[in-house]
Amino acid sequence: METALQRFLPAPEIVPERLHRAMRYAVLGGGKRVRPLLAFAAGELAEADPGRVEVVAGAVEMIHAYSLVHDDLPCMDNDVLRRGKPTCHVEFDEATALLAGDALQPLAFQILAEHVLADSPEAQFEMLKILALASGSRGMAGGQAIDLASVGKMLSLPELEFMHIRKTGALIRAAAVLGARCGHGLDASELGRLERYAKTVGLAFQVVDDVLDCDTSTATLGKTAGKDAAQEKPTYVSVIGLARARALAEELRAEAHAALASFGARAVRLRELADFIVLRKF
Amino acid sequence: METALQRFLPAPEIVPERLHRAMRYAVLGGGKRVRPLLAFAAGELAEADPGRVEVVAGAVEMIHAYSLVHDDLPCMDNDVLRRGKPTCHVEFDEATALLAGDALQPLAFQILAEHVLADSPEAQFEMLKILALASGSRGMAGGQAIDLASVGKMLSLPELEFMHIRKTGALIRAAAVLGARCGHGLDASELGRLERYAKTVGLAFQVVDDVLDCDTSTATLGKTAGKDAAQEKPTYVSVIGLARARALAEELRAEAHAALASFGARAVRLRELADFIVLRKF
Repeated sequence: METALQRFLPAPEIVPERLHRAMRYAVLGGGKRVRPLLAFAAGELAEADPGRVEVVAGAVEMIHAYSLVHDDLPCMDNDVLRRGKPTCHVEFDEATALLAGDALQPLAFQILAEHVLADSPEAQFEMLKILALASGSRGMAGGQAIDLASVGKMLSLPELEFMHIRKTGALIRAAAVLGARCGHGLDASELGRLERYAKTVGLAFQVVDDVLDCDTSTATLGKTAGKDAAQEKPTYVSVIGLARARALAEELRAEAHAALASFGARAVRLRELADFIVLRKF
Repeated sequence: METALQRFLPAPEIVPERLHRAMRYAVLGGGKRVRPLLAFAAGELAEADPGRVEVVAGAVEMIHAYSLVHDDLPCMDNDVLRRGKPTCHVEFDEATALLAGDALQPLAFQILAEHVLADSPEAQFEMLKILALASGSRGMAGGQAIDLASVGKMLSLPELEFMHIRKTGALIRAAAVLGARCGHGLDASELGRLERYAKTVGLAFQVVDDVLDCDTSTATLGKTAGKDAAQEKPTYVSVIGLARARALAEELRAEAHAALASFGARAVRLRELADFIVLRKF
Protein backbone atom coordinates (compact mmCIF):
# COMPACT_ATOMS: atom_id res chain seq x y z
CA MET A 1 0.00 0.00 0.00
CA GLU A 2 2.78 2.42 0.89
CA THR A 3 4.59 1.93 -2.42
CA ALA A 4 1.30 2.14 -4.32
CA LEU A 5 0.40 5.42 -2.62
CA GLN A 6 3.87 6.75 -3.40
CA ARG A 7 3.23 5.93 -7.03
CA PHE A 8 -0.31 7.37 -7.19
CA LEU A 9 0.75 10.69 -5.65
CA PRO A 10 2.44 13.39 -7.75
CA ALA A 11 6.21 13.46 -7.28
CA PRO A 12 7.44 16.21 -4.95
CA GLU A 13 9.53 17.75 -7.75
CA ILE A 14 6.46 18.48 -9.89
CA VAL A 15 5.18 22.09 -9.84
CA PRO A 16 3.61 23.27 -7.58
CA GLU A 17 6.17 21.54 -5.35
CA ARG A 18 4.88 22.81 -2.03
CA LEU A 19 1.35 21.58 -2.74
CA HIS A 20 2.63 18.19 -3.82
CA ARG A 21 4.81 17.94 -0.74
CA ALA A 22 1.77 18.73 1.41
CA MET A 23 -0.33 16.09 -0.35
CA ARG A 24 2.39 13.50 0.21
CA TYR A 25 2.84 14.59 3.81
CA ALA A 26 -0.89 14.11 4.39
CA VAL A 27 -1.03 10.63 2.88
CA LEU A 28 2.37 8.98 3.39
CA GLY A 29 4.29 7.87 6.43
CA GLY A 30 1.69 7.15 9.01
CA GLY A 31 -1.75 5.91 9.76
CA LYS A 32 -2.98 2.47 10.62
CA ARG A 33 -4.23 1.96 7.04
CA VAL A 34 -7.37 0.32 8.39
CA ARG A 35 -9.36 1.12 5.23
CA PRO A 36 -6.79 -0.36 2.83
CA LEU A 37 -6.51 -3.41 5.08
CA LEU A 38 -10.28 -3.82 4.90
CA ALA A 39 -10.26 -3.44 1.13
CA PHE A 40 -7.57 -6.11 0.76
CA ALA A 41 -9.31 -8.46 3.20
CA ALA A 42 -12.63 -8.06 1.40
CA GLY A 43 -10.85 -8.46 -1.91
CA GLU A 44 -9.43 -11.76 -0.71
CA LEU A 45 -12.95 -12.88 0.16
CA ALA A 46 -14.04 -12.13 -3.41
CA GLU A 47 -10.91 -13.54 -5.02
CA ALA A 48 -10.02 -10.13 -6.38
CA ASP A 49 -6.83 -9.26 -8.24
CA PRO A 50 -4.65 -7.48 -5.64
CA GLY A 51 -3.57 -5.05 -8.36
CA ARG A 52 -7.15 -3.86 -8.62
CA VAL A 53 -7.61 -3.70 -4.85
CA GLU A 54 -4.48 -1.58 -4.54
CA VAL A 55 -6.16 1.11 -6.64
CA VAL A 56 -9.44 1.24 -4.71
CA ALA A 57 -7.58 1.04 -1.39
CA GLY A 58 -5.38 3.93 -2.53
CA ALA A 59 -8.39 5.99 -3.58
CA VAL A 60 -10.17 5.39 -0.27
CA GLU A 61 -7.04 6.24 1.70
CA MET A 62 -6.64 9.51 -0.23
CA ILE A 63 -10.20 10.49 0.65
CA HIS A 64 -9.52 9.55 4.28
CA ALA A 65 -6.27 11.53 4.34
CA TYR A 66 -7.89 14.63 2.84
CA SER A 67 -10.68 14.43 5.42
CA LEU A 68 -8.14 14.37 8.27
CA VAL A 69 -6.32 17.40 6.85
CA HIS A 70 -9.54 19.41 6.60
CA ASP A 71 -10.81 18.11 9.92
CA ASP A 72 -7.66 19.35 11.66
CA LEU A 73 -7.98 22.90 10.24
CA PRO A 74 -8.56 25.73 12.73
CA CYS A 75 -12.15 26.27 11.54
CA MET A 76 -12.90 22.59 12.26
CA ASP A 77 -11.20 20.71 15.12
CA ASN A 78 -8.16 23.00 15.22
CA ASP A 79 -5.70 20.24 16.00
CA VAL A 80 -1.91 20.37 15.89
CA LEU A 81 -0.96 16.70 16.17
CA ARG A 82 -1.80 13.79 13.86
CA ARG A 83 -0.06 10.46 13.54
CA GLY A 84 2.61 11.72 15.93
CA LYS A 85 3.52 14.61 13.64
CA PRO A 86 2.40 18.24 13.26
CA THR A 87 -0.87 18.45 11.34
CA CYS A 88 -0.64 19.50 7.71
CA HIS A 89 -1.60 23.14 8.28
CA VAL A 90 0.97 23.41 11.10
CA GLU A 91 3.73 21.85 8.99
CA PHE A 92 2.81 23.92 5.91
CA ASP A 93 0.13 26.61 6.26
CA GLU A 94 -3.65 26.73 6.31
CA ALA A 95 -4.15 27.59 2.66
CA THR A 96 -1.76 24.88 1.50
CA ALA A 97 -3.47 22.32 3.74
CA LEU A 98 -6.86 23.33 2.39
CA LEU A 99 -5.64 22.96 -1.20
CA ALA A 100 -3.81 19.70 -0.48
CA GLY A 101 -7.09 18.23 0.75
CA ASP A 102 -8.94 19.69 -2.20
CA ALA A 103 -6.46 18.16 -4.63
CA LEU A 104 -6.48 14.70 -3.02
CA GLN A 105 -10.18 14.28 -3.77
CA PRO A 106 -10.01 14.42 -7.58
CA LEU A 107 -6.86 12.29 -7.50
CA ALA A 108 -8.87 9.54 -5.81
CA PHE A 109 -11.50 9.64 -8.56
CA GLN A 110 -8.83 9.93 -11.22
CA ILE A 111 -7.15 6.67 -10.26
CA LEU A 112 -10.53 4.92 -10.13
CA ALA A 113 -11.24 6.13 -13.66
CA GLU A 114 -7.87 5.26 -15.19
CA HIS A 115 -7.45 1.64 -14.12
CA VAL A 116 -9.57 -1.38 -15.01
CA LEU A 117 -11.13 -2.41 -11.70
CA ALA A 118 -14.13 -4.54 -12.52
CA ASP A 119 -15.21 -7.13 -15.04
CA SER A 120 -17.64 -4.72 -16.69
CA PRO A 121 -17.55 -0.93 -17.17
CA GLU A 122 -21.02 -0.68 -15.62
CA ALA A 123 -19.68 -2.33 -12.45
CA GLN A 124 -16.78 0.11 -12.40
CA PHE A 125 -19.05 3.17 -12.78
CA GLU A 126 -21.00 1.77 -9.84
CA MET A 127 -17.74 1.63 -7.84
CA LEU A 128 -16.99 5.27 -8.65
CA LYS A 129 -20.47 6.14 -7.48
CA ILE A 130 -20.00 4.18 -4.25
CA LEU A 131 -16.87 6.18 -3.39
CA ALA A 132 -18.55 9.47 -4.33
CA LEU A 133 -21.59 8.76 -2.17
CA ALA A 134 -19.46 7.60 0.76
CA SER A 135 -17.40 10.81 0.60
CA GLY A 136 -20.19 13.28 0.02
CA SER A 137 -22.93 15.07 1.90
CA ARG A 138 -24.85 11.88 2.57
CA GLY A 139 -21.68 10.13 3.69
CA MET A 140 -18.49 11.33 5.33
CA ALA A 141 -18.84 15.09 4.73
CA GLY A 142 -22.43 14.92 5.97
CA GLY A 143 -21.33 13.06 9.09
CA GLN A 144 -18.78 15.76 9.82
CA ALA A 145 -21.47 18.42 9.45
CA ILE A 146 -23.66 16.57 11.95
CA ASP A 147 -20.65 16.18 14.24
CA LEU A 148 -20.05 19.95 14.19
CA ALA A 149 -23.71 20.65 14.85
CA SER A 150 -23.67 18.35 17.87
CA VAL A 151 -20.99 20.23 19.83
CA GLY A 152 -22.28 20.98 23.29
CA LYS A 153 -25.39 18.82 22.79
CA MET A 154 -26.26 15.56 24.48
CA LEU A 155 -27.16 13.09 21.75
CA SER A 156 -29.08 9.89 22.24
CA LEU A 157 -27.35 6.62 21.34
CA PRO A 158 -29.30 6.32 18.05
CA GLU A 159 -28.39 9.91 17.14
CA LEU A 160 -24.72 9.24 17.88
CA GLU A 161 -24.87 6.12 15.75
CA PHE A 162 -26.62 8.02 12.93
CA MET A 163 -23.70 10.47 12.89
CA HIS A 164 -20.93 7.88 13.01
CA ILE A 165 -22.49 5.67 10.34
CA ARG A 166 -21.82 8.66 8.09
CA LYS A 167 -18.70 10.29 9.55
CA THR A 168 -16.43 7.27 9.75
CA GLY A 169 -18.71 4.38 8.82
CA ALA A 170 -19.46 5.35 5.23
CA LEU A 171 -15.85 5.30 4.07
CA ILE A 172 -14.99 2.16 6.04
CA ARG A 173 -17.97 0.41 4.44
CA ALA A 174 -16.91 1.70 1.02
CA ALA A 175 -13.40 0.33 1.55
CA ALA A 176 -14.73 -3.18 2.17
CA VAL A 177 -17.37 -3.07 -0.55
CA LEU A 178 -14.98 -1.67 -3.16
CA GLY A 179 -12.36 -4.26 -2.29
CA ALA A 180 -14.93 -7.01 -2.78
CA ARG A 181 -16.23 -5.48 -6.00
CA CYS A 182 -12.75 -5.74 -7.52
CA GLY A 183 -13.35 -9.47 -7.52
CA HIS A 184 -16.14 -11.66 -8.75
CA GLY A 185 -18.30 -14.27 -7.23
CA LEU A 186 -19.95 -12.43 -4.33
CA ASP A 187 -23.69 -12.73 -4.83
CA ALA A 188 -26.16 -10.17 -3.47
CA SER A 189 -26.64 -12.04 -0.21
CA GLU A 190 -22.90 -12.39 0.37
CA LEU A 191 -22.39 -8.73 -0.43
CA GLY A 192 -25.15 -7.93 2.06
CA ARG A 193 -23.35 -9.86 4.79
CA LEU A 194 -20.07 -8.16 3.95
CA GLU A 195 -21.81 -4.78 4.21
CA ARG A 196 -23.24 -5.78 7.60
CA TYR A 197 -19.75 -6.75 8.73
CA ALA A 198 -18.32 -3.46 7.44
CA LYS A 199 -21.04 -1.38 9.05
CA THR A 200 -20.42 -3.16 12.34
CA VAL A 201 -16.64 -2.78 12.34
CA GLY A 202 -17.09 0.84 11.28
CA LEU A 203 -19.14 1.52 14.40
CA ALA A 204 -16.78 -0.57 16.54
CA PHE A 205 -13.89 1.51 15.22
CA GLN A 206 -15.56 4.67 16.46
CA VAL A 207 -16.57 3.23 19.84
CA VAL A 208 -12.98 2.11 20.42
CA ASP A 209 -11.70 5.51 19.25
CA ASP A 210 -13.86 7.17 21.88
CA VAL A 211 -12.68 4.77 24.59
CA LEU A 212 -9.03 5.31 23.65
CA ASP A 213 -9.52 9.08 23.43
CA CYS A 214 -10.62 8.98 27.04
CA ASP A 215 -8.09 6.61 28.63
CA THR A 216 -4.92 6.71 26.49
CA SER A 217 -2.13 9.28 26.38
CA THR A 218 -1.46 11.68 23.51
CA ALA A 219 1.98 10.10 23.06
CA THR A 220 0.51 6.63 22.49
CA LEU A 221 -2.32 7.84 20.24
CA GLY A 222 -0.13 10.12 18.12
CA LYS A 223 -2.99 12.62 18.21
CA THR A 224 -4.36 14.88 20.91
CA ALA A 225 -6.10 12.75 23.57
CA GLY A 226 -9.21 13.91 25.39
CA LYS A 227 -10.02 16.25 22.53
CA ASP A 228 -13.67 15.35 22.14
CA ALA A 229 -14.44 15.87 25.80
CA ALA A 230 -12.57 19.19 25.76
CA GLN A 231 -14.60 20.31 22.72
CA GLU A 232 -17.85 19.13 24.33
CA LYS A 233 -18.51 16.65 21.54
CA PRO A 234 -20.76 13.77 22.45
CA THR A 235 -18.89 10.45 22.37
CA TYR A 236 -19.83 6.87 23.17
CA VAL A 237 -18.15 7.39 26.53
CA SER A 238 -20.06 10.58 27.33
CA VAL A 239 -23.37 9.13 26.13
CA ILE A 240 -23.28 5.62 27.64
CA GLY A 241 -20.21 5.67 29.92
CA LEU A 242 -16.82 3.96 29.68
CA ALA A 243 -17.86 0.50 30.88
CA ARG A 244 -20.85 0.26 28.55
CA ALA A 245 -18.79 1.62 25.64
CA ARG A 246 -16.22 -1.14 26.21
CA ALA A 247 -18.98 -3.73 26.35
CA LEU A 248 -20.54 -2.32 23.16
CA ALA A 249 -17.23 -2.66 21.31
CA GLU A 250 -17.12 -6.31 22.31
CA GLU A 251 -20.73 -6.85 21.18
CA LEU A 252 -19.95 -5.27 17.83
CA ARG A 253 -16.90 -7.49 17.46
CA ALA A 254 -19.08 -10.56 18.03
CA GLU A 255 -21.64 -9.22 15.55
CA ALA A 256 -18.94 -8.68 12.94
CA HIS A 257 -17.76 -12.27 13.38
CA ALA A 258 -21.34 -13.51 13.13
CA ALA A 259 -21.82 -11.69 9.81
CA LEU A 260 -18.82 -13.59 8.45
CA ALA A 261 -19.82 -17.00 9.81
CA SER A 262 -20.85 -18.57 6.50
CA PHE A 263 -17.73 -17.45 4.62
CA GLY A 264 -15.36 -19.98 6.18
CA ALA A 265 -11.60 -19.67 5.71
CA ARG A 266 -11.87 -17.03 2.97
CA ALA A 267 -12.80 -14.46 5.61
CA VAL A 268 -9.87 -15.07 7.96
CA ARG A 269 -8.34 -11.65 7.35
CA LEU A 270 -11.67 -9.89 7.82
CA ARG A 271 -12.00 -11.67 11.20
CA GLU A 272 -8.48 -10.65 12.18
CA LEU A 273 -9.30 -7.06 11.27
CA ALA A 274 -12.43 -7.01 13.42
CA ASP A 275 -10.25 -8.19 16.31
CA PHE A 276 -7.54 -5.64 15.52
CA ILE A 277 -10.03 -2.78 15.36
CA VAL A 278 -11.57 -3.61 18.72
CA LEU A 279 -8.48 -4.80 20.60
CA ARG A 280 -6.02 -2.10 19.39
CA LYS A 281 -4.38 0.07 22.00
CA PHE A 282 -3.84 3.20 19.84
CA MET B 1 -28.75 24.60 -16.48
CA GLU B 2 -30.42 26.12 -13.43
CA THR B 3 -33.11 23.45 -13.29
CA ALA B 4 -30.55 20.72 -13.90
CA LEU B 5 -28.35 21.98 -11.06
CA GLN B 6 -31.42 22.11 -8.80
CA ARG B 7 -32.03 18.47 -9.63
CA PHE B 8 -28.42 17.31 -9.21
CA LEU B 9 -28.08 18.94 -5.79
CA PRO B 10 -29.47 17.28 -2.64
CA ALA B 11 -32.82 18.74 -1.58
CA PRO B 12 -32.57 21.21 1.32
CA GLU B 13 -34.85 19.02 3.46
CA ILE B 14 -32.40 16.10 3.44
CA VAL B 15 -30.23 15.66 6.55
CA PRO B 16 -27.84 17.37 7.18
CA GLU B 17 -30.07 20.27 6.12
CA ARG B 18 -27.63 23.08 6.86
CA LEU B 19 -24.90 21.48 4.76
CA HIS B 20 -27.29 20.91 1.88
CA ARG B 21 -28.54 24.50 2.11
CA ALA B 22 -24.94 25.71 1.98
CA MET B 23 -24.18 23.54 -1.07
CA ARG B 24 -27.24 24.92 -2.84
CA TYR B 25 -26.38 28.46 -1.81
CA ALA B 26 -22.92 28.03 -3.31
CA VAL B 27 -24.14 26.67 -6.63
CA LEU B 28 -27.58 28.16 -7.33
CA GLY B 29 -28.83 31.65 -8.00
CA GLY B 30 -25.92 33.47 -9.49
CA GLY B 31 -22.87 33.29 -11.63
CA LYS B 32 -22.44 33.89 -15.32
CA ARG B 33 -22.39 30.14 -16.01
CA VAL B 34 -19.56 30.65 -18.48
CA ARG B 35 -18.37 27.05 -18.13
CA PRO B 36 -21.80 25.49 -18.76
CA LEU B 37 -22.28 27.85 -21.72
CA LEU B 38 -18.95 26.66 -23.13
CA ALA B 39 -19.91 23.03 -22.60
CA PHE B 40 -23.20 23.51 -24.44
CA ALA B 41 -21.59 25.49 -27.26
CA ALA B 42 -18.89 22.83 -27.70
CA GLY B 43 -21.55 20.14 -27.45
CA GLU B 44 -23.43 21.80 -30.32
CA LEU B 45 -20.24 21.73 -32.39
CA ALA B 46 -20.00 17.98 -31.81
CA GLU B 47 -23.71 17.34 -32.27
CA ALA B 48 -23.98 16.14 -28.69
CA ASP B 49 -27.19 15.18 -26.94
CA PRO B 50 -28.01 18.21 -24.73
CA GLY B 51 -29.10 15.79 -21.98
CA ARG B 52 -25.54 14.52 -21.79
CA VAL B 53 -24.04 18.01 -21.92
CA GLU B 54 -26.27 19.08 -19.04
CA VAL B 55 -24.56 16.49 -16.84
CA VAL B 56 -20.98 17.45 -17.67
CA ALA B 57 -21.84 21.16 -17.47
CA GLY B 58 -23.40 20.56 -14.06
CA ALA B 59 -20.35 18.65 -12.85
CA VAL B 60 -17.96 21.36 -14.04
CA GLU B 61 -20.10 24.08 -12.45
CA MET B 62 -20.10 22.20 -9.11
CA ILE B 63 -16.30 22.05 -9.18
CA HIS B 64 -16.20 25.74 -10.04
CA ALA B 65 -18.65 26.62 -7.25
CA TYR B 66 -16.72 24.61 -4.65
CA SER B 67 -13.50 26.35 -5.70
CA LEU B 68 -15.09 29.77 -5.17
CA VAL B 69 -16.34 28.79 -1.72
CA HIS B 70 -12.89 27.58 -0.64
CA ASP B 71 -11.16 30.51 -2.37
CA ASP B 72 -13.28 32.99 -0.37
CA LEU B 73 -12.40 31.41 3.00
CA PRO B 74 -10.43 33.52 5.49
CA CYS B 75 -7.29 31.39 5.07
CA MET B 76 -7.39 32.02 1.31
CA ASP B 77 -8.70 35.30 -0.16
CA ASN B 78 -10.86 36.13 2.86
CA ASP B 79 -13.67 37.65 0.86
CA VAL B 80 -17.17 38.56 2.00
CA LEU B 81 -18.97 39.23 -1.27
CA ARG B 82 -19.60 36.88 -4.20
CA ARG B 83 -22.19 37.17 -6.94
CA GLY B 84 -23.68 40.14 -5.09
CA LYS B 85 -24.34 38.06 -1.96
CA PRO B 86 -22.43 37.29 1.23
CA THR B 87 -19.88 34.55 0.61
CA CYS B 88 -20.79 31.06 1.83
CA HIS B 89 -18.76 31.21 5.04
CA VAL B 90 -20.30 34.61 5.89
CA GLU B 91 -23.85 33.40 5.22
CA PHE B 92 -23.26 30.10 7.07
CA ASP B 93 -19.96 29.62 8.90
CA GLU B 94 -16.42 28.64 7.99
CA ALA B 95 -16.72 24.96 8.84
CA THR B 96 -19.99 24.60 6.92
CA ALA B 97 -18.49 26.39 3.91
CA LEU B 98 -15.45 24.13 4.02
CA LEU B 99 -17.65 21.01 4.13
CA ALA B 100 -20.04 22.32 1.46
CA GLY B 101 -17.08 22.68 -0.89
CA ASP B 102 -15.76 19.29 0.13
CA ALA B 103 -19.13 17.68 -0.58
CA LEU B 104 -19.61 19.35 -3.97
CA GLN B 105 -16.50 17.64 -5.35
CA PRO B 106 -17.66 14.03 -5.03
CA LEU B 107 -21.13 15.04 -6.24
CA ALA B 108 -19.55 16.23 -9.49
CA PHE B 109 -17.84 12.87 -10.00
CA GLN B 110 -20.95 11.03 -8.90
CA ILE B 111 -23.13 12.52 -11.62
CA LEU B 112 -20.44 11.80 -14.22
CA ALA B 113 -20.43 8.16 -13.10
CA GLU B 114 -24.18 7.65 -12.96
CA HIS B 115 -25.26 8.94 -16.38
CA VAL B 116 -24.36 7.62 -19.82
CA LEU B 117 -22.32 10.43 -21.36
CA ALA B 118 -20.34 8.90 -24.19
CA ASP B 119 -20.74 6.28 -26.89
CA SER B 120 -18.28 3.95 -25.17
CA PRO B 121 -17.48 3.36 -21.48
CA GLU B 122 -13.78 3.91 -22.24
CA ALA B 123 -14.59 7.37 -23.58
CA GLN B 124 -16.60 8.11 -20.45
CA PHE B 125 -13.79 7.02 -18.10
CA GLU B 126 -11.56 9.36 -20.10
CA MET B 127 -14.06 12.18 -19.42
CA LEU B 128 -13.99 11.46 -15.69
CA LYS B 129 -10.23 11.61 -15.84
CA ILE B 130 -10.30 14.92 -17.71
CA LEU B 131 -12.42 16.51 -14.97
CA ALA B 132 -10.23 15.03 -12.23
CA LEU B 133 -7.03 16.31 -13.82
CA ALA B 134 -8.51 19.75 -14.47
CA SER B 135 -9.60 20.03 -10.81
CA GLY B 136 -6.50 18.62 -9.16
CA SER B 137 -2.98 19.61 -8.26
CA ARG B 138 -1.88 19.85 -11.88
CA GLY B 139 -4.99 21.87 -12.74
CA MET B 140 -7.17 24.26 -10.78
CA ALA B 141 -5.98 23.45 -7.23
CA GLY B 142 -2.37 23.67 -8.42
CA GLY B 143 -3.05 27.04 -10.02
CA GLN B 144 -4.48 28.32 -6.76
CA ALA B 145 -1.39 27.14 -4.92
CA ILE B 146 0.83 29.03 -7.40
CA ASP B 147 -1.45 32.06 -7.04
CA LEU B 148 -0.98 32.02 -3.26
CA ALA B 149 2.76 31.65 -3.58
CA SER B 150 2.92 34.65 -5.90
CA VAL B 151 1.46 37.18 -3.44
CA GLY B 152 3.82 40.14 -3.19
CA LYS B 153 5.96 38.90 -6.10
CA MET B 154 6.33 40.40 -9.53
CA LEU B 155 5.77 37.62 -12.04
CA SER B 156 6.81 37.68 -15.67
CA LEU B 157 4.08 37.40 -18.30
CA PRO B 158 4.90 33.72 -19.01
CA GLU B 159 4.79 32.96 -15.26
CA LEU B 160 1.43 34.70 -14.95
CA GLU B 161 0.15 32.72 -17.91
CA PHE B 162 1.51 29.48 -16.44
CA MET B 163 -0.53 30.13 -13.30
CA HIS B 164 -3.76 31.10 -15.05
CA ILE B 165 -3.64 28.20 -17.50
CA ARG B 166 -4.06 26.11 -14.34
CA LYS B 167 -6.10 28.28 -12.00
CA THR B 168 -8.98 29.21 -14.29
CA GLY B 169 -7.90 27.81 -17.66
CA ALA B 170 -7.91 24.12 -16.80
CA LEU B 171 -11.57 24.00 -15.82
CA ILE B 172 -12.68 26.25 -18.70
CA ARG B 173 -10.85 23.96 -21.10
CA ALA B 174 -12.40 20.92 -19.45
CA ALA B 175 -15.87 22.43 -19.85
CA ALA B 176 -15.43 22.80 -23.61
CA VAL B 177 -13.70 19.46 -24.10
CA LEU B 178 -16.22 17.54 -22.02
CA GLY B 179 -19.12 19.19 -23.83
CA ALA B 180 -17.63 18.14 -27.15
CA ARG B 181 -16.89 14.63 -25.93
CA CYS B 182 -20.58 14.12 -25.17
CA GLY B 183 -21.04 14.09 -28.93
CA HIS B 184 -19.38 12.25 -31.74
CA GLY B 185 -17.66 13.25 -34.89
CA LEU B 186 -14.87 15.49 -33.65
CA ASP B 187 -11.64 14.01 -34.94
CA ALA B 188 -8.30 14.54 -33.19
CA SER B 189 -7.47 17.61 -35.26
CA GLU B 190 -10.88 19.21 -34.60
CA LEU B 191 -10.56 18.44 -30.91
CA GLY B 192 -7.12 20.04 -30.99
CA ARG B 193 -8.56 23.24 -32.45
CA LEU B 194 -11.34 23.26 -29.90
CA GLU B 195 -8.75 22.91 -27.14
CA ARG B 196 -6.78 25.79 -28.59
CA TYR B 197 -9.96 27.88 -28.63
CA ALA B 198 -10.73 26.91 -25.04
CA LYS B 199 -7.22 27.64 -23.84
CA THR B 200 -7.38 31.04 -25.50
CA VAL B 201 -10.79 32.05 -24.10
CA GLY B 202 -9.67 30.77 -20.71
CA LEU B 203 -6.75 33.18 -20.73
CA ALA B 204 -8.91 35.95 -22.18
CA PHE B 205 -11.38 35.40 -19.36
CA GLN B 206 -8.64 36.02 -16.81
CA VAL B 207 -7.18 39.05 -18.59
CA VAL B 208 -10.65 40.62 -18.72
CA ASP B 209 -11.22 39.71 -15.06
CA ASP B 210 -8.06 41.59 -14.14
CA VAL B 211 -9.08 44.60 -16.24
CA LEU B 212 -12.56 44.67 -14.70
CA ASP B 213 -11.16 44.17 -11.20
CA CYS B 214 -9.18 47.36 -11.72
CA ASP B 215 -11.72 49.64 -13.39
CA THR B 216 -15.20 48.43 -12.35
CA SER B 217 -17.13 48.99 -9.12
CA THR B 218 -17.87 46.33 -6.53
CA ALA B 219 -21.61 46.87 -7.10
CA THR B 220 -21.33 46.07 -10.81
CA LEU B 221 -19.01 43.10 -10.32
CA GLY B 222 -21.00 41.56 -7.47
CA LYS B 223 -17.65 40.78 -5.84
CA THR B 224 -15.03 42.90 -4.13
CA ALA B 225 -13.29 45.06 -6.74
CA GLY B 226 -9.61 45.94 -6.54
CA LYS B 227 -8.99 42.88 -4.40
CA ASP B 228 -5.97 41.54 -6.22
CA ALA B 229 -4.14 44.85 -6.08
CA ALA B 230 -4.96 45.18 -2.37
CA GLN B 231 -3.62 41.67 -1.75
CA GLU B 232 -0.51 42.39 -3.82
CA LYS B 233 -1.31 39.64 -6.27
CA PRO B 234 0.24 39.99 -9.69
CA THR B 235 -2.40 40.57 -12.39
CA TYR B 236 -2.27 41.21 -16.11
CA VAL B 237 -2.79 44.87 -15.27
CA SER B 238 0.06 45.00 -12.74
CA VAL B 239 2.40 43.02 -14.99
CA ILE B 240 1.77 44.63 -18.41
CA GLY B 241 -0.43 47.66 -17.61
CA LEU B 242 -4.09 48.40 -18.33
CA ALA B 243 -3.73 49.40 -21.98
CA ARG B 244 -1.68 46.35 -22.94
CA ALA B 245 -3.99 44.08 -20.96
CA ARG B 246 -6.98 45.43 -22.93
CA ALA B 247 -5.08 44.90 -26.18
CA LEU B 248 -4.10 41.37 -25.12
CA ALA B 249 -7.76 40.50 -24.49
CA GLU B 250 -8.58 41.64 -28.02
CA GLU B 251 -5.70 39.58 -29.46
CA LEU B 252 -6.89 36.51 -27.61
CA ARG B 253 -10.41 37.07 -28.91
CA ALA B 254 -9.08 37.15 -32.47
CA GLU B 255 -7.03 34.01 -31.78
CA ALA B 256 -10.10 32.23 -30.43
CA HIS B 257 -12.02 33.11 -33.57
CA ALA B 258 -9.12 31.93 -35.72
CA ALA B 259 -9.09 28.55 -33.99
CA LEU B 260 -12.75 28.14 -34.95
CA ALA B 261 -12.39 29.29 -38.55
CA SER B 262 -12.76 25.89 -40.21
CA PHE B 263 -15.84 24.91 -38.22
CA GLY B 264 -18.30 27.12 -40.08
CA ALA B 265 -21.80 27.68 -38.76
CA ARG B 266 -21.58 24.88 -36.18
CA ALA B 267 -19.31 27.08 -34.06
CA VAL B 268 -21.54 30.14 -33.95
CA ARG B 269 -22.19 29.86 -30.23
CA LEU B 270 -18.51 29.35 -29.45
CA ARG B 271 -17.77 32.57 -31.35
CA GLU B 272 -20.48 34.42 -29.47
CA LEU B 273 -18.99 33.19 -26.22
CA ALA B 274 -15.51 34.40 -27.08
CA ASP B 275 -17.07 37.80 -27.74
CA PHE B 276 -19.10 37.69 -24.53
CA ILE B 277 -16.06 36.73 -22.44
CA VAL B 278 -13.95 39.59 -23.79
CA LEU B 279 -16.61 42.29 -24.15
CA ARG B 280 -18.47 41.67 -20.87
CA LYS B 281 -18.73 44.53 -18.41
CA PHE B 282 -18.93 42.49 -15.18
